[in-house]
Amino acid sequence: MQTVMLKLVTIIGETVLAEQLSDELKSLGAKGFTATEVRGEGSRHLRAGDIPGHNVKIETIVSPAVASSILEHVVQKYFSHYAVIAYVTDVSVVRGEKYV
Amino acid sequence: MQTVMLKLVTIIGETVLAEQLSDELKSLGAKGFTATEVRGEGSRHLRAGDIPGHNVKIETIVSPAVASSILEHVVQKYFSHYAVIAYVTDVSVVRGEKYV
Amino acid sequence: MQTVMLKLVTIIGETVLAEQLSDELKSLGAKGFTATEVRGEGSRHLRAGDIPGHNVKIETIVSPAVASSILEHVVQKYFSHYAVIAYVTDVSVVRGEKYV
Repeated sequence: MQTVMLKLVTIIGETVLAEQLSDELKSLGAKGFTATEVRGEGSRHLRAGDIPGHNVKIETIVSPAVASSILEHVVQKYFSHYAVIAYVTDVSVVRGEKYV
Repeated sequence: MQTVMLKLVTIIGETVLAEQLSDELKSLGAKGFTATEVRGEGSRHLRAGDIPGHNVKIETIVSPAVASSILEHVVQKYFSHYAVIAYVTDVSVVRGEKYV
Repeated sequence: MQTVMLKLVTIIGETVLAEQLSDELKSLGAKGFTATEVRGEGSRHLRAGDIPGHNVKIETIVSPAVASSILEHVVQKYFSHYAVIAYVTDVSVVRGEKYV
């Protein structure tokens, strides 16, 4: 079984950002993505009167270069104003040519 | 804390495949699995008239040998006709003996 | 892009445990978590009369030391009586200082 080592980029943020984020991921080179409804609670949500709410987890498998571009973009555009988290996992992917 | 390095196999495909896939995973040696409703959009879905729809993400923790068997099976049975993606992540598991 | 290598701890268990588990994670040092509704089926669920049901997947990004504390806690408190699984993945995180 031939596999390719690629990067799984995971971004978790407010649901309202989902459509915009997925468009941006595609502009930056992602060929597809998976979105999951999640519930998040983090330090940004601990202010008085704030209730933990529905978030979206967006996952995309990309090359290392595209992963870096996505992280750079997410930090510059969202990190100051939104409770967004972003991380990268190494994954071994079947049919890696679909993703790069 | 004693942990064991195992493989987390993730398969994302059309929801209609979930029951069949999970039966097949068990036949191939998986002891259990987790299914999550997700929404997917990928290159297979970009055809005119096609709308991105509800998919299922199936995850199972298995030995390296079972992971290989599962990937082989998924590629041979599904990759030609379905928008399935499959990847493997290394995970450090508590009570690893439950999974192998 | 500056990233930090941290641990993504994933715990999957019965939905009824979600609130208690997330409180415990915070006591043990987690700064936040993400919860996802999932459906699980495992060896614990194969007893006669048992039906696979709705579970929750709780994910948190923490330091290696906090990851160890969480695993230790989960094993000691839950593994004897609940169908809980727990595993750790290495992740490369943007703005790692939020998590430790």
